[in-house]
Amino acid sequence: MDIGAVNALPYDDFVNIFGNVVEKCPVISAAVWSRRPFANLAALEAAVSDFIDALPESGHEGILRCHPDLAGRDLQSGTLTRESRDEQAGAGLDALSSAEARTMGRLNDEYKRRFGFPFVICARLNDKENILRQLSERCANEPAEERARGMEEVKKICRLRLQGLVRTDAPNKL
Amino acid sequence: MDIGAVNALPYDDFVNIFGNVVEKCPVISAAVWSRRPFANLAALEAAVSDFIDALPESGHEGILRCHPDLAGRDLQSGTLTRESRDEQAGAGLDALSSAEARTMGRLNDEYKRRFGFPFVICARLNDKENILRQLSERCANEPAEERARGMEEVKKICRLRLQGLVRTDAPNKL
Repeated sequence: MDIGAVNALPYDDFVNIFGNVVEKCPVISAAVWSRRPFANLAALEAAVSDFIDALPESGHEGILRCHPDLAGRDLQSGTLTRESRDEQAGAGLDALSSAEARTMGRLNDEYKRRFGFPFVICARLNDKENILRQLSERCANEPAEERARGMEEVKKICRLRLQGLVRTDAPNKL
Repeated sequence: MDIGAVNALPYDDFVNIFGNVVEKCPVISAAVWSRRPFANLAALEAAVSDFIDALPESGHEGILRCHPDLAGRDLQSGTLTRESRDEQAGAGLDALSSAEARTMGRLNDEYKRRFGFPFVICARLNDKENILRQLSERCANEPAEERARGMEEVKKICRLRLQGLVRTDAPNKL
């Protein structure tokens, strides 16, 4: 779909299509629909980002808390969103060795206990070794640093999900 | 569950239980978890309300757009959230005559075309005749008035959903 088709969507279709560009936060895309028309994909992405930035700290924590654990219960039980499932599988998180799975579970729990939100990382830009390493390292960060880092990752995930939904290679149309 | 048990919940259990007190907006309860401990149910409700009030206008429109049409496509296809299904059924919206269903469909479409968000009303405080009458009347309101009115209804729905989840009749505990 090109940006012209995006701008022509009624809100319910827009939310159906873009509702999960921020994991389990359809209210964000539903809010951003008010900002149409978007000049291009970058403008749509900026509208999402601006809305997120304007939220209070608790809102950022809320967004992080809507994310599943990596290689966690939702992956095991098949209750991930389609987008998360594909992203986690792409990084090899659905095929961990038992030792890797144990380490991941232990570190996820440690991270959540420390910060009160889950470890969020853009799985499509990392493989499982890298994810395990960063999870281990980031457990040592300060809460404010980690909240900000998590939100950067949310935006990377959002950018890639948007790029999967909106064509940017279309020639300019009048 | 009493408020002490609520305050003891880890964030993921809290979001599982309270994630739909505002329809399809788990990010709100996920954010509000940061405000624990809650002195009582009223404090939890106030935290939700405060978070909503601090959102920009587009955020309020986004919340409204996460609500399904009354007696609409989601009810027909069985894709309502459990809470919405029970509330709509309680108001008799799952048993409209064909004439009522046609009127409801036409007015829902008119409302959405005019305002860019769906008609939201607390179905548990109204029956189908009342809902149809108010839908018809509210189509004539100004957008700002109707946005504010919709948000009042969102808060009534939230209050009743919270009351269904948290016991308030427990004696004071030390």
